[in-house]
Amino acid sequence: MDSEKKISPAVINRLPRYYRYLGDLLESDITRISSKELSAKMNITASQIRQDLNNFGGFGQQGYGYNVEYLYNEIKKILGLDRLYNMIVIGGGNIGQALVNYTNFEKRGFVIKAVFDINPRLIGMTIRGVEVYDIDQMEEYVKNNPVDVAILTLPRSQAVKVANDLAKWGVKGMWNFSHVDLQVPDDVLVENVHLTDSLMTLLYKINEMYYSGEDMHEHQLKDGLPVKPVQENEEL
Amino acid sequence: MDSEKKISPAVINRLPRYYRYLGDLLESDITRISSKELSAKMNITASQIRQDLNNFGGFGQQGYGYNVEYLYNEIKKILGLDRLYNMIVIGGGNIGQALVNYTNFEKRGFVIKAVFDINPRLIGMTIRGVEVYDIDQMEEYVKNNPVDVAILTLPRSQAVKVANDLAKWGVKGMWNFSHVDLQVPDDVLVENVHLTDSLMTLLYKINEMYYSGEDMHEHQLKDGLPVKPVQENEEL
Repeated sequence: MDSEKKISPAVINRLPRYYRYLGDLLESDITRISSKELSAKMNITASQIRQDLNNFGGFGQQGYGYNVEYLYNEIKKILGLDRLYNMIVIGGGNIGQALVNYTNFEKRGFVIKAVFDINPRLIGMTIRGVEVYDIDQMEEYVKNNPVDVAILTLPRSQAVKVANDLAKWGVKGMWNFSHVDLQVPDDVLVENVHLTDSLMTLLYKINEMYYSGEDMHEHQLKDGLPVKPVQENEEL
Repeated sequence: MDSEKKISPAVINRLPRYYRYLGDLLESDITRISSKELSAKMNITASQIRQDLNNFGGFGQQGYGYNVEYLYNEIKKILGLDRLYNMIVIGGGNIGQALVNYTNFEKRGFVIKAVFDINPRLIGMTIRGVEVYDIDQMEEYVKNNPVDVAILTLPRSQAVKVANDLAKWGVKGMWNFSHVDLQVPDDVLVENVHLTDSLMTLLYKINEMYYSGEDMHEHQLKDGLPVKPVQENEEL
């Protein structure tokens, strides 16, 4: 990777998608593709594609297109997917267990090594071979084992404190499913997956397109059930 | 809701976050807040907050601040959270089950009514009271029951076809966890949760900040295990 060049966050966010499409092409034994063909598939303009991929040294050739395998491998290297990552899950609930059970992570090199929880019914169990430890053992674990990413799937009331502790103990990457914004130092990198926010955004768009003329209250009464108050005591 | 005014997508994407923070304030019995105080909590500039909230008629008053409850309820209405939404899950695997088990959705009015799968071991089961049906029954179900949102948590190889079918049968909202971009008509609204893309973005940033000088290959060898090839046959 050319460490001199600063790539914009927008391009970085598009890289996994390029990587996914190029992987699909490889699987279909397609060896070359023009920016125009890729544009039609990805619904990005061809000039945007050329501009994005030029960031990495311009692998395209006029009248020949991109070498799919080469580009795939370059993006793989740029994304850092040519090594293994050690991850831990904090919170062995629904989402935490689903992530541990997702075998494709491991195949990609994203290895979940341990789960931590406070629930005595979970502690000592294994999920697909991954042990669930008492959260009290987390400090010792983190200080004695390499941890690239902590996956936070714990109740929001505890997530901020746990993230701060992990940062203090040297964890530099947090993949945050807890429905709260973390307050961690700038040298700690966070990606949020706030599922409820994502769903609300979708519902807003549905409402705007399909119900903006209707009386919302009537709509609710029509459905018959009152909406119960929410207790925010889980992840998501 | 003022249906005349077009609110920018950036503001819409921030609304769930405002809603979350205002809900937290309400729970802490805080009745008024200035844009400055909210700014400090949310890590958005005060002028951005005033600009965002002005979209909804300017609930703030100079020297008084925002009425938290009023603003919370207005945003709730704007987001369409004052009604119930009927949702179905297509794909009863790890993520699908985790979403059905997440009770806070129902408390918020996001009600999962049915799960569809092709796996005979799952069909006929119930997950937290929600029945798993054969995917062959989906067409009949969708045509005879109100469905606001289809949650797609099925293998990517099937997601595109299923989404097209659902769109044809009148489903207007898709919350897409399948690791593929859907190709649906413009009147169908899609929110993607591509978890693997999100994790890759995080790993890129970690690499860029912490490993950009290192030889990646050596790093991999040091870890000792070869990275297995990925078979893309699951959701995420």
